[in-house]
Amino acid sequence: MLTRIDHIGIACFDLDATVEFYRATYGFEVFHTEVNEEQGVREAMLRINGTDDGGASWIQLLEPTREDSTVAKWLAKNGEGVHHIAFGTDDVDGAAETIGGRGVRVLYDEPRRGSMGSRITFLHPKDCHGVLTELVTSATSAPEGESGGH
Amino acid sequence: MLTRIDHIGIACFDLDATVEFYRATYGFEVFHTEVNEEQGVREAMLRINGTDDGGASWIQLLEPTREDSTVAKWLAKNGEGVHHIAFGTDDVDGAAETIGGRGVRVLYDEPRRGSMGSRITFLHPKDCHGVLTELVTSATSAPEGESGGH
Repeated sequence: MLTRIDHIGIACFDLDATVEFYRATYGFEVFHTEVNEEQGVREAMLRINGTDDGGASWIQLLEPTREDSTVAKWLAKNGEGVHHIAFGTDDVDGAAETIGGRGVRVLYDEPRRGSMGSRITFLHPKDCHGVLTELVTSATSAPEGESGGH
Repeated sequence: MLTRIDHIGIACFDLDATVEFYRATYGFEVFHTEVNEEQGVREAMLRINGTDDGGASWIQLLEPTREDSTVAKWLAKNGEGVHHIAFGTDDVDGAAETIGGRGVRVLYDEPRRGSMGSRITFLHPKDCHGVLTELVTSATSAPEGESGGH
């Protein structure tokens, strides 16, 4: 059902400075950046490795774009650090339904748009031993029927 | 230098209950358990996926074994959640030296024993934008000269 650690989401105050830290310290380069207005974040994706399900594992750096975003509120309370973890699946809808049926609160009624065209949902951290947990289907790993392919 | 997300270390109050949560909710099974007296933790390793450097990515669940362990103190302050992240390398000594030379405090003078015979060190979270960051060379990916094998 969940086939990889897709990414670790890290909240930061200054995206450019944090991107530079990861580049200068570890040699990790930015693969992609985008603004997600719905989530209220500006983000950078650093590709760390490929995974044996055909996907990849990433560090996702997140800077809030507005004070009322969940990441801004989280930063004000916690300071910089790991904001969430994400497991990859080829069927985020099915995984959310299965996990929801096991008593874990799923935060969205339907998956929403995540990084790089992915579809994501979140599980309530209080139901996951304190860990805000995301489920993600990347744009390239959606089931054939859903991707509109042949 | 760093070639994979090796693991996400998650601190919990009750290892058995947390292991059962990850099994019942996601289907992740325990690959290995051990007690690390030096770190003051009892831990379970859940293998999530293989990585394209020949290693794997894991969820590491950590329960403190004594009140004066760093994980116990962290839990008392923060509650359950993500305690650290770890990047895999085939040369933890060299990586620590390189990264230390770039101005990041390395917490151990020499790498210590981690899960499953690995060698690990940590970077100071205040030097890493709030993220306690581990570097790890697994027992099977050490350079030939160090593993003594061929």
